[in-house]
Amino acid sequence: MDPEANVASDVKARIAELVRAIEPRLTADRRDFHKHAETGWTEFRTASIIAERLTGLGYDVRMGREVCSAAERMGLPSDDVLEARWVRAAAEGADPAALDRMRGGFTGVVGEWRASDGPIVALRFDIDALPLFESSLETHRPAAEGFASIHPEACHACGHDGHAAVGLAIAAILQSIRSDLRGTVRLIFQPAEEGVRGARSMVAGGVLDDVDVLFGHHVVTGCAVGEIFPGMGGYAATRKFDVAFHGAPAHAGGSPEGGHNALLAAATATLHLHALPRHRDGFTRINVGQLSGGSGRNIIPARAHLVAEVRGETTELCETMHDRAMNVIAAAADMYGCTTTVRAMGAAGTADSDPELADRVRAIAAQELNASCFDLHKMGGSEDFTEMMLRVQARGGLATNIGIGADLHGVRFEDARDERILLAHTDIYDFDERALAFAAHLLVLAVHHVTIP
Amino acid sequence: MDPEANVASDVKARIAELVRAIEPRLTADRRDFHKHAETGWTEFRTASIIAERLTGLGYDVRMGREVCSAAERMGLPSDDVLEARWVRAAAEGADPAALDRMRGGFTGVVGEWRASDGPIVALRFDIDALPLFESSLETHRPAAEGFASIHPEACHACGHDGHAAVGLAIAAILQSIRSDLRGTVRLIFQPAEEGVRGARSMVAGGVLDDVDVLFGHHVVTGCAVGEIFPGMGGYAATRKFDVAFHGAPAHAGGSPEGGHNALLAAATATLHLHALPRHRDGFTRINVGQLSGGSGRNIIPARAHLVAEVRGETTELCETMHDRAMNVIAAAADMYGCTTTVRAMGAAGTADSDPELADRVRAIAAQELNASCFDLHKMGGSEDFTEMMLRVQARGGLATNIGIGADLHGVRFEDARDERILLAHTDIYDFDERALAFAAHLLVLAVHHVTIP
Amino acid sequence: MDPEANVASDVKARIAELVRAIEPRLTADRRDFHKHAETGWTEFRTASIIAERLTGLGYDVRMGREVCSAAERMGLPSDDVLEARWVRAAAEGADPAALDRMRGGFTGVVGEWRASDGPIVALRFDIDALPLFESSLETHRPAAEGFASIHPEACHACGHDGHAAVGLAIAAILQSIRSDLRGTVRLIFQPAEEGVRGARSMVAGGVLDDVDVLFGHHVVTGCAVGEIFPGMGGYAATRKFDVAFHGAPAHAGGSPEGGHNALLAAATATLHLHALPRHRDGFTRINVGQLSGGSGRNIIPARAHLVAEVRGETTELCETMHDRAMNVIAAAADMYGCTTTVRAMGAAGTADSDPELADRVRAIAAQELNASCFDLHKMGGSEDFTEMMLRVQARGGLATNIGIGADLHGVRFEDARDERILLAHTDIYDFDERALAFAAHLLVLAVHHVTIP
Amino acid sequence: MDPEANVASDVKARIAELVRAIEPRLTADRRDFHKHAETGWTEFRTASIIAERLTGLGYDVRMGREVCSAAERMGLPSDDVLEARWVRAAAEGADPAALDRMRGGFTGVVGEWRASDGPIVALRFDIDALPLFESSLETHRPAAEGFASIHPEACHACGHDGHAAVGLAIAAILQSIRSDLRGTVRLIFQPAEEGVRGARSMVAGGVLDDVDVLFGHHVVTGCAVGEIFPGMGGYAATRKFDVAFHGAPAHAGGSPEGGHNALLAAATATLHLHALPRHRDGFTRINVGQLSGGSGRNIIPARAHLVAEVRGETTELCETMHDRAMNVIAAAADMYGCTTTVRAMGAAGTADSDPELADRVRAIAAQELNASCFDLHKMGGSEDFTEMMLRVQARGGLATNIGIGADLHGVRFEDARDERILLAHTDIYDFDERALAFAAHLLVLAVHHVTIP
Repeated sequence: MDPEANVASDVKARIAELVRAIEPRLTADRRDFHKHAETGWTEFRTASIIAERLTGLGYDVRMGREVCSAAERMGLPSDDVLEARWVRAAAEGADPAALDRMRGGFTGVVGEWRASDGPIVALRFDIDALPLFESSLETHRPAAEGFASIHPEACHACGHDGHAAVGLAIAAILQSIRSDLRGTVRLIFQPAEEGVRGARSMVAGGVLDDVDVLFGHHVVTGCAVGEIFPGMGGYAATRKFDVAFHGAPAHAGGSPEGGHNALLAAATATLHLHALPRHRDGFTRINVGQLSGGSGRNIIPARAHLVAEVRGETTELCETMHDRAMNVIAAAADMYGCTTTVRAMGAAGTADSDPELADRVRAIAAQELNASCFDLHKMGGSEDFTEMMLRVQARGGLATNIGIGADLHGVRFEDARDERILLAHTDIYDFDERALAFAAHLLVLAVHHVTIP
Repeated sequence: MDPEANVASDVKARIAELVRAIEPRLTADRRDFHKHAETGWTEFRTASIIAERLTGLGYDVRMGREVCSAAERMGLPSDDVLEARWVRAAAEGADPAALDRMRGGFTGVVGEWRASDGPIVALRFDIDALPLFESSLETHRPAAEGFASIHPEACHACGHDGHAAVGLAIAAILQSIRSDLRGTVRLIFQPAEEGVRGARSMVAGGVLDDVDVLFGHHVVTGCAVGEIFPGMGGYAATRKFDVAFHGAPAHAGGSPEGGHNALLAAATATLHLHALPRHRDGFTRINVGQLSGGSGRNIIPARAHLVAEVRGETTELCETMHDRAMNVIAAAADMYGCTTTVRAMGAAGTADSDPELADRVRAIAAQELNASCFDLHKMGGSEDFTEMMLRVQARGGLATNIGIGADLHGVRFEDARDERILLAHTDIYDFDERALAFAAHLLVLAVHHVTIP
Repeated sequence: MDPEANVASDVKARIAELVRAIEPRLTADRRDFHKHAETGWTEFRTASIIAERLTGLGYDVRMGREVCSAAERMGLPSDDVLEARWVRAAAEGADPAALDRMRGGFTGVVGEWRASDGPIVALRFDIDALPLFESSLETHRPAAEGFASIHPEACHACGHDGHAAVGLAIAAILQSIRSDLRGTVRLIFQPAEEGVRGARSMVAGGVLDDVDVLFGHHVVTGCAVGEIFPGMGGYAATRKFDVAFHGAPAHAGGSPEGGHNALLAAATATLHLHALPRHRDGFTRINVGQLSGGSGRNIIPARAHLVAEVRGETTELCETMHDRAMNVIAAAADMYGCTTTVRAMGAAGTADSDPELADRVRAIAAQELNASCFDLHKMGGSEDFTEMMLRVQARGGLATNIGIGADLHGVRFEDARDERILLAHTDIYDFDERALAFAAHLLVLAVHHVTIP
Repeated sequence: MDPEANVASDVKARIAELVRAIEPRLTADRRDFHKHAETGWTEFRTASIIAERLTGLGYDVRMGREVCSAAERMGLPSDDVLEARWVRAAAEGADPAALDRMRGGFTGVVGEWRASDGPIVALRFDIDALPLFESSLETHRPAAEGFASIHPEACHACGHDGHAAVGLAIAAILQSIRSDLRGTVRLIFQPAEEGVRGARSMVAGGVLDDVDVLFGHHVVTGCAVGEIFPGMGGYAATRKFDVAFHGAPAHAGGSPEGGHNALLAAATATLHLHALPRHRDGFTRINVGQLSGGSGRNIIPARAHLVAEVRGETTELCETMHDRAMNVIAAAADMYGCTTTVRAMGAAGTADSDPELADRVRAIAAQELNASCFDLHKMGGSEDFTEMMLRVQARGGLATNIGIGADLHGVRFEDARDERILLAHTDIYDFDERALAFAAHLLVLAVHHVTIP
């Protein structure tokens, strides 16, 4: 069965026209979000704009505690930081009513629109920025063209500004072709993807519970606009955690035997975490990214803090690493008479795109948009969209994540693994904005395809 | 020979009168210094007041680079901090001419006054505060009476405010009894005693090179006013140092084999520093007081910083520990392909008070001031006055350090070792100000005793 | 081209007859070698029997230093052990002339036989036993039937007794069909495969330098007789090494600061070897299998000895691990003022069977012997036949390693990974001896196939 | 009161004569014990000779389980070793009746003799050898003169052969002057002093419970015959222990995540034991003297064994170190999922000689034997005679340990600390046998002195 046969050619022509028309707005939205970058759980301005816009388009909007489970939020900033960013968003003109609903770090938004009985199709857009100080180099386009982040603590260095803008563009286009659709469309704007902190909160909030088909997408530098990965998968499972070691101080010269040395406990844990063994069943990872402890030079350190993560080729491998890490940490603390507090800071399992759904996207992309399609099954990195995919797949739905080529420089993906790593999550990250219209176009076609009778 | 026979009774009476007269000023000076506490190498306001006052009293004043060797200053703050504190001192009204001579952290001052041929008698006063935020509790007298530090980064929690004030009182009294003295009197106001950072700079500056008799003193909580330790000694030798580990970053998930893990190198060094063996020849100490390293959770740490010290019952033991520490650090860095930069942050050898000189102080204290005298030969802690004592003793001079009872609460020293340790260097430290007049009285009598024909 | 077309049917019938005829001898040889098991580099009796038999069959025999490079032998026993085992072989009736040529641990034997110009076809048979004490359980057939090892230090627990017997059977059969062959046949009997210690010595001895086609084989428990793996590959590369740490002793109570603690150096190395990071390019392994050090309870240990190995999915990964291990060891020794001696104890790279040659074996096995053929590309373990394959492949020749099903119990390979691991290299290992005639049959057919015009 | 006044001059003359007469026997006994050296708990031949001789002299003899508590024996050899040495002693002619009472390692002997009511005076003699292979150098007198140990596992390298011989000489002399004595004399021959393993067993056996005055002695190389230390003290307290780590094996290549690595647990414990902090209250020591673990190169080690000791300037410091060591060991085992078995291998507290009793010995030695007396209060090493002293002192008795100069070469003790350490416990240890008669003479005089009315 030919997928294009499912789309009446006039609808396809109208969609193409709508995409062309919205492109300036798409770019403007992306640049506005970029300029006002907000890190995970503080996307107060970004989310309030999204909520306002969705409401204006006639979507039924849920947000805040309605869609984010408080208990499942991970890696939350301190109350002070949450409050300061909330106040800043207000000062920057965010809608007071929306702000009220998000106070304390509930920055997820869901817009929904029901055409008729039929499948529930959801799209997910992540909206948070990274904790970087953006480059002011002239060679960095956001700086040169005046839309670099004005927030010193945040920088959109992973394209989520684009994802949010694509979500708004899709919202508008779908509204315009409402009569050609069937079933329900749900647009999910997720906070705190960086550090894989936010997805579980929205899954626990119930917004995936009845979804039949789920699409995600991510701009990919390293391949050009017009190239796509219809079914990205192979994400590593990961657990992020912080550990506080609590000991007791003593004067190191006068009472060297005194106290409980939290720094030695943490240093011991660090070494032995890195010595956790490999696993025959697949790759695993462990990293202690930060360690800090101690106060004065002549004081036996009473406090130490460790920032770490584990990964695994499968969720099971990741959980094994996590269990063993917890054991090492507890034993290292015991060795020095210390106690610990472990705080979950992020988590995501592994998930694969459904080949059937990915193939449909592949066919649409190739036939309607003349795209070149590639496979990419070993991402190495992690992405908490997997948590949403797992929820949908668990009840029999289909899900896929689509990589959208967006490279500014035409570097081929396979030749540039390291370069890509350097590029993403750096203060000079940027992408080809034409990818946004391409993504919106592809996703609208995909939604239309899965919802038509 | 009876020491009191050396002092004409009228001179002694006059001294007593002068001490009584200056007591209000002494307390006021101490409280002024306390309120404007300045940490090591930033005592710009304190030193400029001292210089101004000594000049006014007719002393020949040397300061800045004249008395502090630039190369031997240890544990210097950053240039930014030095400049900021210098600007603050100006804003607080410090004498511009004096400030000019101290810019960049040259905060030693020496006042000298020559009566005749004869011995050169020097007294040393340390003037720096500790990097603490002073308590605002009502039970803390400086807070209750309005002279707590107004500088958030500094607090006089070890009595050096009192030492500086005693130095100024002695300067004034000695000037008044000038005709009864012989030889030369030199008053040395030393910066940065905390962390044993400043003495070597003034020794290298030459101000001890020709001294025949040297007195130091320190207020001692844990014993009451009227109790003294005429010849404190047994200070541990110490070396303080910071180590920067330089590695290379890598993405911990994507390239776990990449980079050079500076944090693992530093953690390894920390554990093995603490495993340095004991020594048959006496006690030794080692402490890593702080360790911090790493950047992002998923980045192999490229940088780590370690703050440490070693001590020894003798200078030789201390040096052995330092040598072995350096070896451990270098090997730990090698193990992880890292390099290190080690920075000396403080150093002091061991020295003992000359028993002969201490006995003279004991006799004066007992006979003239009715003091109770005790021995204290195992201080455990460190004090860089030893560097000055060693310089004087090396050329045949005599030196002693005098403990001055100053406890507010009457707790006996020998019963309260731990409590004293908790008290000193804490944000609620305070002492009995009557000890200041006592110290000034004793030191003036001692100077008179050693200078009269 | 059909492989069977290359073999005249009468020759095939004669081969089948010869195999049937030699089967009793094959079993007897295997049981004789099993009963007189000899570990690597001490196969004096085994090798002398092989040499005698090959000579008797008219083969040109080279052995000892002619075929084993002294310098490339790894993991050699001590001179005392070598001599004691040599003396024992003599006492057990080994040929004195052959023994003379092997003295000191040169236990490789090569038999060669040239029919005409044409390809040089080599077959390799490993002949050494494992350092185990064989089970005397009644349920263990070698014990029950009286051919368990009479040498307490050695046990054929990996089937090399069978490989050696297969080599002798092939030698006899090929001699009988000499007129039907072309080119040169070379039978290589290799010592010390366990621990991957012997192959490099024979490669350096030059016996692979002119080989066009190379076959190896290994009995495989876990699949039944009649099942084969025509082109086994994916062996992990490995480096085995021992490290001696040399320090200096001291009395731990009287001079705790004295000496150089070799045990702490070795323990430190052990921990940090296990902390060597994973690699993005594939799996790696590290193990410290043994550590021993120290003398008296109250003596600072002056000596320690560490037994370790690294592995890698590729030779490059293995070498990277080895380089990093050497760096860790050197740094750990430096940290404690020790020196080290590292001794290579075994090494093998990765190599894959040539698909073309494996396919020919597959066709012969399926068509002539009705075998079931399987693929097995991830062996996990190591095998130093790879060193010989690499040498042959490097000059353009073809090589393959053939797994020969030999399970006694019919357990399927894929279901029984763990069980196989437990079974191999244990004191109750045994295999189905019918596999030996099968292997001889298959290999003779393969040799005939590749040598006929 | 002058001590010599207590000894009638004729008795003193008779004692001197008896000592002269017994000297050849003393030397012969020492050399016989030396030649048949037996290590701790295996002194079957030595103890049976002692028992036989004491019985012959009319002493009431208790031995075996009568005087050694089974539960308090520490560092016992294996049952196999105990049995083999017991059989050997029988083969060497030891008295079967005595052997029966000692079977299983109960090698203490007590001879007692009651003259009248009065004080119970005890003397202790240790009788065990060290686990060394004695030197056969010509320059080593025992070898040159034919009395080197014929037992390869044992060597009297600490003079206990002499102590035992002195005990027998004293037994004979005291018997001869029986009518001049008062009270009860008890001669305690203690096994297993090396490793401080035996004293607690005899203390628990009750043989010190009613003692009023206790003498011990030890030959001291480093000072000459005629020089003594009347009240040696300052022994370090010590605890010796072995730790077995129990894990689980796994194939390191095939299942790197499997098993529980007992060697890593033991190596971790070793490093962190050495990192136990110093103590402000005095010196402490820790040493891991041996570590061994693991089996095959490619097997995750399932077993490891650690041999260690702690010491302290006081019993309390030693106990603190022991407690912390136990905590480190338990935590290191936990870290790797292992369990441990800790076995006490030796223990001794600190004790000081009673100055009053030492002074009496000093007076006797100086006046009667013209000895030079020295003080030695910091032994550094350990000696389980302290356990007996503590028992006697606890109930109000007096105890002293007497060092007896015995150097062959005239090296002064205070100049030769290191050399002495090297000399003792080495395979070339020897001493000046004239010290034995001196010791017997001094101790008989001391016993007479404390028992006369």
